[in-house]
Amino acid sequence: MSQAAPARSAKQRRQDTIDRLERDVDAWVATAGPEGGAPYMMPLSFMWRDECVYVSTRATNPVARNLVASGQVHLGIGPTRDVVHITGRCEALPADEVTEEFGDAFAAQAGFDPRRDGGAYLYFRIRPLRIQAWREANELAGRDLMRDGVWLEVD
Amino acid sequence: MSQAAPARSAKQRRQDTIDRLERDVDAWVATAGPEGGAPYMMPLSFMWRDECVYVSTRATNPVARNLVASGQVHLGIGPTRDVVHITGRCEALPADEVTEEFGDAFAAQAGFDPRRDGGAYLYFRIRPLRIQAWREANELAGRDLMRDGVWLEVD
Repeated sequence: MSQAAPARSAKQRRQDTIDRLERDVDAWVATAGPEGGAPYMMPLSFMWRDECVYVSTRATNPVARNLVASGQVHLGIGPTRDVVHITGRCEALPADEVTEEFGDAFAAQAGFDPRRDGGAYLYFRIRPLRIQAWREANELAGRDLMRDGVWLEVD
Repeated sequence: MSQAAPARSAKQRRQDTIDRLERDVDAWVATAGPEGGAPYMMPLSFMWRDECVYVSTRATNPVARNLVASGQVHLGIGPTRDVVHITGRCEALPADEVTEEFGDAFAAQAGFDPRRDGGAYLYFRIRPLRIQAWREANELAGRDLMRDGVWLEVD
């Protein structure tokens, strides 16, 4: 194992986290089936906007069905040794919010355009309740950056 | 988006997958709570041995509780554009299988030694039922490498 770098400050972690949310394309998206005990995890590309994560997938996919059923999601963004971990509440985006501007922005950031698929896709808005960021074990302490949907204060 | 490379052959994907399982250290581990709809996803380091993935975590952690309760797990190994995805069945390792040799091998591959933590950790053996590997969208076809616990034949 390589020597871990010193733990970052809370302020630095928050800045790194926002940078990653604005620049990264992919997230591991974990949902759970309605029966209990059935995990489902897949990578999806995302857009970060107005403090929410947006993803899109086919309405018939397990991830979409699970999101519609429970609204609960975990997101893992970044490599396993530079994690941004989000626990969020999710809702399918109402049709009147899928404006042309929104669709264009999503396509530009996520790298694919769900509108081209003949209506088979849904957009989902994930509102973070908890955001954590850590690299190595020495950053497990202080990993909480947001709790109950509110960014913790940093100096 | 960068242009995707040509899709790999089944044989190449299988070799790349085995290489990754033997060399990588970390996996995204997704489980689900017993109540339904409650996802839980965290990165853990792992050991690949005898066609199984071994992980270790504190017995009190949600991932351990979910694994004990349901035995169902999804693993994501590698970056989101070079994925090895495993759907597996999981069991806690019986004490008589936690030999000194096993513990040493796990510590060497996973990079930490759960035995140093005074018995608070469990080892888990994850037997793959399905293994998939893909990089970009052009590799979604043919991504299944194992089904029902059996490697598919490759030329």
